[in-house]
Amino acid sequence: MELIPAPEWQVSQWFNTSKELTLAALRGRIVVLYAFQMLCPGCVTHGIPQAQRLANVFKDDPVSVIGIHTVFEHHQVTGPEALRVFLHEYRVQFPVGIDGRGLRGDPMPRTMRAYAMRGTPTTVLIDAQGNLRQQVFGVQDELKLGAEIGKLIAQVTTASEEVPNPSRGGRPRGSGKGAVLAI
Amino acid sequence: MELIPAPEWQVSQWFNTSKELTLAALRGRIVVLYAFQMLCPGCVTHGIPQAQRLANVFKDDPVSVIGIHTVFEHHQVTGPEALRVFLHEYRVQFPVGIDGRGLRGDPMPRTMRAYAMRGTPTTVLIDAQGNLRQQVFGVQDELKLGAEIGKLIAQVTTASEEVPNPSRGGRPRGSGKGAVLAI
Amino acid sequence: MELIPAPEWQVSQWFNTSKELTLAALRGRIVVLYAFQMLCPGCVTHGIPQAQRLANVFKDDPVSVIGIHTVFEHHQVTGPEALRVFLHEYRVQFPVGIDGRGLRGDPMPRTMRAYAMRGTPTTVLIDAQGNLRQQVFGVQDELKLGAEIGKLIAQVTTASEEVPNPSRGGRPRGSGKGAVLAI
Amino acid sequence: MELIPAPEWQVSQWFNTSKELTLAALRGRIVVLYAFQMLCPGCVTHGIPQAQRLANVFKDDPVSVIGIHTVFEHHQVTGPEALRVFLHEYRVQFPVGIDGRGLRGDPMPRTMRAYAMRGTPTTVLIDAQGNLRQQVFGVQDELKLGAEIGKLIAQVTTASEEVPNPSRGGRPRGSGKGAVLAI
Repeated sequence: MELIPAPEWQVSQWFNTSKELTLAALRGRIVVLYAFQMLCPGCVTHGIPQAQRLANVFKDDPVSVIGIHTVFEHHQVTGPEALRVFLHEYRVQFPVGIDGRGLRGDPMPRTMRAYAMRGTPTTVLIDAQGNLRQQVFGVQDELKLGAEIGKLIAQVTTASEEVPNPSRGGRPRGSGKGAVLAI
Repeated sequence: MELIPAPEWQVSQWFNTSKELTLAALRGRIVVLYAFQMLCPGCVTHGIPQAQRLANVFKDDPVSVIGIHTVFEHHQVTGPEALRVFLHEYRVQFPVGIDGRGLRGDPMPRTMRAYAMRGTPTTVLIDAQGNLRQQVFGVQDELKLGAEIGKLIAQVTTASEEVPNPSRGGRPRGSGKGAVLAI
Repeated sequence: MELIPAPEWQVSQWFNTSKELTLAALRGRIVVLYAFQMLCPGCVTHGIPQAQRLANVFKDDPVSVIGIHTVFEHHQVTGPEALRVFLHEYRVQFPVGIDGRGLRGDPMPRTMRAYAMRGTPTTVLIDAQGNLRQQVFGVQDELKLGAEIGKLIAQVTTASEEVPNPSRGGRPRGSGKGAVLAI
Repeated sequence: MELIPAPEWQVSQWFNTSKELTLAALRGRIVVLYAFQMLCPGCVTHGIPQAQRLANVFKDDPVSVIGIHTVFEHHQVTGPEALRVFLHEYRVQFPVGIDGRGLRGDPMPRTMRAYAMRGTPTTVLIDAQGNLRQQVFGVQDELKLGAEIGKLIAQVTTASEEVPNPSRGGRPRGSGKGAVLAI
C-alpha cells in the first residue's frame, strides 16, 4: 500500500494552546485531526464529545487530538469570538485551530480543501511518520476508531524499540519480542 | 514486562460452533474471551452487545471472540438448555462454551477459577502468542478496548511480515516499513 | 367512545407482594399492566427498566404497576424459580404475577389470551374504573406513555373532588376549579 | 392550591411563525414554554431535542410548544442572525421568540426575569387558563413531563365537555362520565 503524506494544515488562529502547532512538528506522534463546525449538529452531539473522549483516553499515549474549525457556511456567525465561546461552553480542552480562509474566493477553507473533506464532522488519522492513514466523514464506531489508533500506537512503540542500534550489533529481533515490548 | 501465558479454558459444552475450540488451536489469532452469566444484568445490557459488536467489527481481522458462560450462582436455572434459549433469543452468533464445573465442590467454575476472575462480565485479551494481555471486570470503554485490540492486531501483522525468511537472508527490516505493512 | 372493561388477570403465583392481587381490588387506582418474558431481549433491555421507572415516578400517585410473566415459549427454562432469580438480579421491585397456564393445551397463557396480546413486551393501561384504555405491543415513547397516565390520574383526582355532595347542595362545579384541584 | 397567572412573555423577534404570538392569545391551549440559549450544551444536547419531541408527540393535542431564546451571557455571538442559523441547522420547527433585552441594563432578558428563571434550559408548563403549573430548571424525566402535560390535557377536554349548557338545563354531570369523555 502506497502511503500519502498528510498535507500541512493552514490555521489562522489557535485556541487551547500557547503556541502555534504544525503537523510537521508533531512527527513521532499519531495525530487525530478532527474537523468540525460549531453549529453542525452531528459535530456537537457526537463528534466533539468523541474527540474529547479520545483526548482523555489516549492522554498517556503518543497521540495528539487536534480540532480544526472548517467553516464552509454561515461564516458571519461562527467567527473567532463565537468559536471561543463555544469551546468555553462545551469545555473543549484539546487544541483547536481556525482553518484558513479559502484562496481566491473559495468558500471552502484551506485545510478542508487540501484534504478534500466532504463535510463535517470529518476525522483524519495521521501516523507518526506524517502519513494519512484514514479519513472518515461522519460519526465513527468507537471500537473501530480505537483499533485504528491502537495499530498506529503499536507501530510507534515498535519503531522506537526496533531502531537498529549499531552498538548492540543491529541484530534482527524476533517479532514476538517486539510484540511484547509494544505493549 | 513479563508476560504470562493465558490458561487453557475448560469447557463442558459448546454452542455456535461445530467443533470444540481450544485456546492452543487459536495460536496466531487474538482471542477476546468474554465471560458472562445469562442472568447478570450488566452482561446482558452492556457486555453481550459489546461482544457481538466486537465480533462484527473485527470479523475480517485475526480476532476470535469467544464467550464463556461462567456460572457461579443460580446454577439450577442457568443450565445448558436455558443458555441455548438465551443465545437464540439474543441472536448471539459467536462461539460460547459452558465453563466446566468447579473441582471438589468449588462453586466457581474451572476457567473462571483459573483466570481468577472477580465476577461477570469479564473481558480477557489474549495475544496471538497465547499470552494474557488484559483482563477487565465490568464494562469497558470502547475506544480503549478497540485500541488494545488494535495494538495486538498490529503485532500479528507485523510478525507475519517479519518472520525471518532464510531464503531472503533474514536481514533486519526497518520498523518504518513494518509499520506500513501492518496497516 | 365505548369503553371495554379490562379482563381480570389469572395468576398462578405472585412475587414482590405479600398478598394476591386482583384487578377488581385495585378499582380506584390506575393500573399499568406490564406483560413480559424474562428471556425476551426487548423486555429486558427496554421494557423492564421502563416499568421500574414508571413505578418510581408514580409512586405517590394512585398508580399501580403490575408485571405479568406471560410465557408463551421456552416454558421449561422460564419457570417460577428462574423468574425468582431474574427478578432478584434485575432488582425488580413491583409486584409480578405468573400468568396462568393456557386452558386445554393453549400455548398462550390465560391473561395473555384474555387480552389478545400480540407478544412481549405489552403495556396495558387500565383506568380507575377498570376500563381498558390503551394496549401497546413493543416499546413506548415515554412522553406519550406519561401523558396517557397523566390523563387518567387527572380523572381520578377530578372524580374524587367532584362527587356530588348533597350537604353542599350538589351545585355544578366549573371545570376550571376542578382543573385546579386536579393538580 | 392558589394558582398564579403566568406572566406574558416579551419577545423582540419571532422565528418559525408568520405572526406574533402572545400567551393571552393561546388561552384554551396548554403552553410549554421552553427557555434556552443556542450555545448552552444542556439545551442543545437534551433540551432542544426534547422540545422537538414534545411538539411532535402532542401535535394533535391542544398543546403549543414555544421556544424562547433567553440570552443572559455571550450576547455578541448569539444574536438574531446566529439564532436563525442555529434553528435552521438543528431543524427546529416550533415557534421561537427572542427574549426582550433587560430593562435598565439588566443582563437578564425580560421574560427570563419575569419568570425568575435560574438558568437554561428551563421548561415552563402553563395551563389552558394561563396559570403557571410547573417550572423546571434542567433536563426533565420524560415520563414525569409527559404526565404533567397529560393532566393538563385532561382538564382542557373535561372543561370543554362540562361548560354549563343552559338549553340542557346545566345539570351537574358525574365525574365518571366526564372522565370517560376526557379520553
